[in-house]
Amino acid sequence: MKYLLKLSYLGTNYCGFQVQPDKPTIQGTLCKAAGDIFKGKCLVTGCSRTDSGVHANEYYATLESTNGTVIPEERLPYALNTALPEDISILSAEKKDDDYRIREHIAGKEYMYKIWNSKIKNPFISDRSWRYPQTLDVSRMNEGAKHIIGTHDFTSFMAAGSDITDCVRTVTDCRVQRDGDTVTVYVSADGFLYNMVRIITGTLIEIPPEDIKSVIESKRRDSAGLTVPACGLYLNRVFLK
Amino acid sequence: MKYLLKLSYLGTNYCGFQVQPDKPTIQGTLCKAAGDIFKGKCLVTGCSRTDSGVHANEYYATLESTNGTVIPEERLPYALNTALPEDISILSAEKKDDDYRIREHIAGKEYMYKIWNSKIKNPFISDRSWRYPQTLDVSRMNEGAKHIIGTHDFTSFMAAGSDITDCVRTVTDCRVQRDGDTVTVYVSADGFLYNMVRIITGTLIEIPPEDIKSVIESKRRDSAGLTVPACGLYLNRVFLK
Repeated sequence: MKYLLKLSYLGTNYCGFQVQPDKPTIQGTLCKAAGDIFKGKCLVTGCSRTDSGVHANEYYATLESTNGTVIPEERLPYALNTALPEDISILSAEKKDDDYRIREHIAGKEYMYKIWNSKIKNPFISDRSWRYPQTLDVSRMNEGAKHIIGTHDFTSFMAAGSDITDCVRTVTDCRVQRDGDTVTVYVSADGFLYNMVRIITGTLIEIPPEDIKSVIESKRRDSAGLTVPACGLYLNRVFLK
Repeated sequence: MKYLLKLSYLGTNYCGFQVQPDKPTIQGTLCKAAGDIFKGKCLVTGCSRTDSGVHANEYYATLESTNGTVIPEERLPYALNTALPEDISILSAEKKDDDYRIREHIAGKEYMYKIWNSKIKNPFISDRSWRYPQTLDVSRMNEGAKHIIGTHDFTSFMAAGSDITDCVRTVTDCRVQRDGDTVTVYVSADGFLYNMVRIITGTLIEIPPEDIKSVIESKRRDSAGLTVPACGLYLNRVFLK
């Protein structure tokens, strides 16, 4: 049996989605909970890697049980949620054919980066956003964000040391919103390079809008802004084909 | 030097406000941070006890340094916040005379109790609210809440085993609000008995509105509803004279 799971998670206590030996991961935790429910080995495949400490408002994964146990799709979220810790929640489950491959069904993704823009700490969101004390000029950031939109070589916005060679991606949306002291950066694209959203956010904070175009054209990581910390990053939406 | 501090904290990792030997508390953590900043023993007095796991959106405490060190009041929040963990934040500080006693200046307090009213877990608020899966009827709860308002003997809404004998309090506001899947109960009063807001909330959930009056009149704890868990409770506002 194969199921498509929609889930959300708080990434604070996990070393990212992907299984790593002796480290808490979302994939490992899902596998264990599913194994308890199906009473046998289960395979979990995610739609995307997320880094240590990164959150997901929406995430898709397939779950395949190997021992023939069938659980009705409408019951599966409740069964799994009972076996999972409070920081991972299964939102829905849908039966799929055995040859369904999640990665082939992803048209794009939207990330959001949440900044608590205040001199004063907010104890309720310290691991759910990044605090930046100087007042951000959201309209200037949005001027810069316009240059990010489009099909570009995003080498300048990829963590140094990555072995990816094709760095051309299409960003379909990039915008910044303020709600009180919370400033949120949204980036949608067909695909993302390693640390791309965190570097785009740091660049929109540090680099004047009129220089963003030349940052892209330079194809040099050191021309862009800082990599903001993981705690503010959320996979927000996954666009399925 | 005596200062009046306004602060907020996430109570999840603390055994309440008041110092206890070998346990993490808000008071103990404040004392230690203040001691580091003033380089000497400091006394911290809170406006109220809060229980283990209870949060505060607004809380007042006085801080008295004993070694004559003076820190300008406008600098003190930044200095203390640097020494404090992320889950406690000093919002402001104000110099007070040495004979200022915080408990004499409290006219009342408002608590709020946050319920995540959904069958589906929300990983982002699991330690900041209580999940209740059955759909709550907020208008019925508000009918019941009207009976709570007023000057009553609240013995029915006090944890069993408390040694308080005068249980008459004046509740100035009691209401329930829904915002999507979040249901919040607000209770304002001149003073509160032990677990009073948590029992009022449990009673508004479990007891029909037409029976609330007789619950109050019975003066029996076992006539009221359950004590809902601490994780959803916030000291929301402190009314200073």
